[in-house]
Amino acid sequence: MQKIDIYPIYIEPFHVDFTGRVFMGVLGNHLLNAAGNHSQKRGWGISALNENHHTWVLSRLSIEMTEMPRNYQHCQVSTWVESVMKLFTTRNFAIKDAEGNPMGYARSVWAMIDTETRRPCDLVTLYDGDLLNYVVSDEENVCPIEGHGRFRFRDAQLVRTLTTCYSDIDINGHVNSIKYIEHILNLFSRQQMERGIKRFEIAYKAESYMGDTLSFYIQPVDDNEIDVEVRKNISEDSNGDVVCQAKVRFNVSDE
Amino acid sequence: MQKIDIYPIYIEPFHVDFTGRVFMGVLGNHLLNAAGNHSQKRGWGISALNENHHTWVLSRLSIEMTEMPRNYQHCQVSTWVESVMKLFTTRNFAIKDAEGNPMGYARSVWAMIDTETRRPCDLVTLYDGDLLNYVVSDEENVCPIEGHGRFRFRDAQLVRTLTTCYSDIDINGHVNSIKYIEHILNLFSRQQMERGIKRFEIAYKAESYMGDTLSFYIQPVDDNEIDVEVRKNISEDSNGDVVCQAKVRFNVSDE
Repeated sequence: MQKIDIYPIYIEPFHVDFTGRVFMGVLGNHLLNAAGNHSQKRGWGISALNENHHTWVLSRLSIEMTEMPRNYQHCQVSTWVESVMKLFTTRNFAIKDAEGNPMGYARSVWAMIDTETRRPCDLVTLYDGDLLNYVVSDEENVCPIEGHGRFRFRDAQLVRTLTTCYSDIDINGHVNSIKYIEHILNLFSRQQMERGIKRFEIAYKAESYMGDTLSFYIQPVDDNEIDVEVRKNISEDSNGDVVCQAKVRFNVSDE
Repeated sequence: MQKIDIYPIYIEPFHVDFTGRVFMGVLGNHLLNAAGNHSQKRGWGISALNENHHTWVLSRLSIEMTEMPRNYQHCQVSTWVESVMKLFTTRNFAIKDAEGNPMGYARSVWAMIDTETRRPCDLVTLYDGDLLNYVVSDEENVCPIEGHGRFRFRDAQLVRTLTTCYSDIDINGHVNSIKYIEHILNLFSRQQMERGIKRFEIAYKAESYMGDTLSFYIQPVDDNEIDVEVRKNISEDSNGDVVCQAKVRFNVSDE
């Protein structure tokens, strides 16, 4: 079986922002769909895994674009497994236009847990090491963007608090991975978003649920980059728990 | 040219709610995409119209479902023009499962405006009355749900206020029609949404923009039905402007 799958995507009118570029959350959704389909085709899809009390957990996602897909554009997403380690597997993506010209790339890190014990599984030995069959060779793994960075929050400022609602929640009862991306980008001004996003990176740390209060902290890194930390259920007595951390790098303006 | 087009839709994992049913906003998006494609194929798409300074404005949308599409389900949306009047045209939809069994129907009302004068156009005479060519006969118009109702707000209660953000805004700089549906359904509790929605009806009255403050008022009609009014930029001196009004009818619980 080939190791890299290619999926066509189409950018719908309600899926673009006021500049005509696709929303980063919608692009993320396309990537996760590609990941899900690629896994499923190889017997590692969520439904097959669920029967054995296993499920995938997304840990990191980094998307870096030279050009963001635009309204009505036909593009394609290719995806493949880069590596398998004991506790994590890495999956990469390429986003290309209809002619196959690269528009950007993405990296993701996944763990697998036992849904009954909530403990991580050993991906190298699970199902006789079958996952290793799908790792691409170095030559095939064309993903020229940097890996996931580290976050250091020192003097982050609380800028928004919101309570999660019905539309945030997925079929598992968790706030869905894509919704965090939307909420984080909603922190920025029209002027910031007009520049467009060069790179978006997110580390998922803990689940949140319907009715949780999410607090959003921002920490500017430089003129082009801002780190964001999301904590849940902070109170007078507690700093709450870190739900996710993100790094947003804006395009350097042409002016 | 045939008058009714059929579009396949597929219900993606991030597009279903905690009960596994597709979000009403996502379903609405599928309907509007079908409407856009059906119009475009007949020379009445937004891009063709824009060249002549015309654009469609959605005025009413009512969706009534006997069964909501579920996670991973393949369905189909068919759409057609029901009637053309001077200031409005009505377009209907059928939502069916992959075997063609009806799951629900929808009705919509559209006006066309001149984008320079913001005045409505006469749809009966525009482009030599071409739109009339696409009206289906009575026999073809199978849309057995009731028409759009009237709203009467007397003692509606303010239940939420929010400021519109980046992710609310479409390529025209307006809060997009689908986002109102999401915000309105976010007013309800987990218990209410667990029942699922039998019918959702919305009347769009005015545009709102990024940074506008939206105030959400609810008025229960009976145990199964709630009316919602959304106003923008209310203040001590002003009741603000009505942006949209909606009626949400929940499924009658089996218990």
